Amino acid sequence: MAGHPAQFRNDPRPLARDAALRARAARVIPGGMWGHMNAARLPQGYPQFFASAAGTRLRDVDGNEYVDFMCAFGPMILGYGDPEVEAAAAAQRGRMDIANGPGEALVELAELMVETVPAADWAMFAKNGTDATTACLMIARAETGRRKILVARGAYHGSAPWCTPWPAGTTAEDRAHLLPFEFNDPASLTEAAAAAEGDLAGILVSAFRHDARTDQELTRPDFAAAARALADRHGAALILDDVRAGFRLHLGGSWEPLGVRPDLAAWSKALGNGHAIAAVTGNDAMRAAAQRIFVTGSFWCGAAAMAAATATLRKLHRIGAVAHMEAMGQMLREGIAAQAAALGLGLRQTGPAQLPMMLFDDDPDLAKGSLFCVTALDHGVYMHPWHDMFLSAAHTEEDIRIALAATRKGLEAVARAQP
Amino acid sequence: MAGHPAQFRNDPRPLARDAALRARAARVIPGGMWGHMNAARLPQGYPQFFASAAGTRLRDVDGNEYVDFMCAFGPMILGYGDPEVEAAAAAQRGRMDIANGPGEALVELAELMVETVPAADWAMFAKNGTDATTACLMIARAETGRRKILVARGAYHGSAPWCTPWPAGTTAEDRAHLLPFEFNDPASLTEAAAAAEGDLAGILVSAFRHDARTDQELTRPDFAAAARALADRHGAALILDDVRAGFRLHLGGSWEPLGVRPDLAAWSKALGNGHAIAAVTGNDAMRAAAQRIFVTGSFWCGAAAMAAATATLRKLHRIGAVAHMEAMGQMLREGIAAQAAALGLGLRQTGPAQLPMMLFDDDPDLAKGSLFCVTALDHGVYMHPWHDMFLSAAHTEEDIRIALAATRKGLEAVARAQP
Repeated sequence: MAGHPAQFRNDPRPLARDAALRARAARVIPGGMWGHMNAARLPQGYPQFFASAAGTRLRDVDGNEYVDFMCAFGPMILGYGDPEVEAAAAAQRGRMDIANGPGEALVELAELMVETVPAADWAMFAKNGTDATTACLMIARAETGRRKILVARGAYHGSAPWCTPWPAGTTAEDRAHLLPFEFNDPASLTEAAAAAEGDLAGILVSAFRHDARTDQELTRPDFAAAARALADRHGAALILDDVRAGFRLHLGGSWEPLGVRPDLAAWSKALGNGHAIAAVTGNDAMRAAAQRIFVTGSFWCGAAAMAAATATLRKLHRIGAVAHMEAMGQMLREGIAAQAAALGLGLRQTGPAQLPMMLFDDDPDLAKGSLFCVTALDHGVYMHPWHDMFLSAAHTEEDIRIALAATRKGLEAVARAQP
Repeated sequence: MAGHPAQFRNDPRPLARDAALRARAARVIPGGMWGHMNAARLPQGYPQFFASAAGTRLRDVDGNEYVDFMCAFGPMILGYGDPEVEAAAAAQRGRMDIANGPGEALVELAELMVETVPAADWAMFAKNGTDATTACLMIARAETGRRKILVARGAYHGSAPWCTPWPAGTTAEDRAHLLPFEFNDPASLTEAAAAAEGDLAGILVSAFRHDARTDQELTRPDFAAAARALADRHGAALILDDVRAGFRLHLGGSWEPLGVRPDLAAWSKALGNGHAIAAVTGNDAMRAAAQRIFVTGSFWCGAAAMAAATATLRKLHRIGAVAHMEAMGQMLREGIAAQAAALGLGLRQTGPAQLPMMLFDDDPDLAKGSLFCVTALDHGVYMHPWHDMFLSAAHTEEDIRIALAATRKGLEAVARAQP
């Protein structure tokens, strides 16, 4: 590892154009930005606005280039602008995107989802992960005629009033029928189910614990099995939220390696490699209920995004994407671990290697994580101080080597700043 | 009007490929389709699946071609595949669509929305109309610290649990804080506000009454003024749902001609001429609250859709689209009225000419409307028997002449079927 090429030295890193755009944005957008991409929630030194993206590389509006480990917060599972996906989308778009009904692309994608996901007998499509998780709750309630949904404390399932992590603008009734449990704790699941008092419609659970600002936890097999058994015992639906993790752990669904199949699953992010699409899949027990609910949207049948999703799934299958992402994530993780050990720094890398989370020991205000990440940015690598990151199938060993040159600088900066 | 060209004679109209696709879809999609584009809710003879679209023309998977008056249920305000919009989207997509933050396209579009919509001091963007109406409710609640929202009985505001028109999968709590009023009835609005008992957060109202299966009603100026005054008196937010009508009645918002400005407005459908995008606009009184809520989505910053929206708005301005759509709608409406009068048929054409709704007298089961529409389909014109239709700026006088040839056939069929 002979260091990183010159174009990855962003030092001194200009951010003047970003600042100018932020000032313009502040006039016409509340706070200048909203939601999970609001850079005001990140340390100083993060760009808010980007100009271009290709493969694993992002360029901000000031021309700084980064090897990216956020993948647009997940969607870019094959890298930005994957030629195969873009060609499929463009070919479909040239004929038709939306119309008064779907195109054949809908049927092809639904068939491919059913073929890819062993738990799925059918599929429906939408635009947001929140559309998919919300529809799952509706289907579970329609099927069971009951109301209560068990949800892990602190888990993120979207930003509708029933699930947004911030209370502003929501009412108590939005969550009236949610009951909390602790992730990976079968006993708390049983207690929550008992608290539902015969009104249990479903158990909603993320692919693994990937809450922000918290160590990630892989799903314990006994927990997954307990969730399945509990749902069966109560005649409730087991709902897997695979929006964030989907297609990075296993193409057939993140719980396939655990041998546990949900009744319903919510998908989005990586499904269309950046094209706006979400999906609900379900088994035959949920089919009639899925037909009885009314969910829809003006753009949900967009055929270009469906063609993109079909191309994405096919390529993921063909290239063995999961194994590659895991290998690249593992290389990054082991490299960082060795660097940290050499510097005597305590840090925790948790969750699956394909969705890395890195938190420093004794870092309650994330000062270490922030210094680490901003230093990495200065050396041409985009990481996140408190959200899980994302590998893509486009990441190469060279990308990891570049990243490790930057993480070494970041760790050295943290070590130097030690009191 | 010498009749319609040969390519618009779809008689006998094959639908075999459509039927085959429906059979495949039935296996992998609950009921074969969902939502507002489900052709199972339409009379026999409607195609479910489409193959291509250009301008005002749609081609189904069996090769039948139609002059389209649904515009994909609204989005296609400049016609399918408008070259200017597609070029803007493609140019942006070639650089970047989604990334770890937005592109400059976000700021440009927000600035253009604020410039275009006199009531707007700021804008935020999303993917679905439902995202936008839901965010409006959240902002109104966050700003006022109150909960009740007044909603017109029967109005459609999206398909989230709080607003979906079908009860399956929803709970009573989803609508716990909604209070009904009658559209265009200021007294019922006052009563509903009183029923809120000091807990009034907002008044949500559609641009005009465009409920399905019902005569449309233009908004009475005194009703709009009463809604504004009532919101002011209660310190509540006036929220205009301009998702369906937006940019077809007035580019600055559908209530601009009435001289009434909402505090918040929801937009989607036509904003990006088919590209998936929605927007919330608001005034400065709502800015801080808009910043305090947490709403987001993986694809909400998609720069290609934003570039498409900017190009759409600019073209709508430049070509005087509203006047053209109104003129074409008026030509269609007057032609149909004359045809019906000549045949002694009673029918009602209601609402704005740009969003036509046609319902037959004495047609409780919509048998006449269905016969009319299917006959029109056979003659190469796609209309809807119980949903408002949509004109686009791409519709030409020639399109209207073709349409009137088909509507004459449809009306003649209805006249022949009279008992």
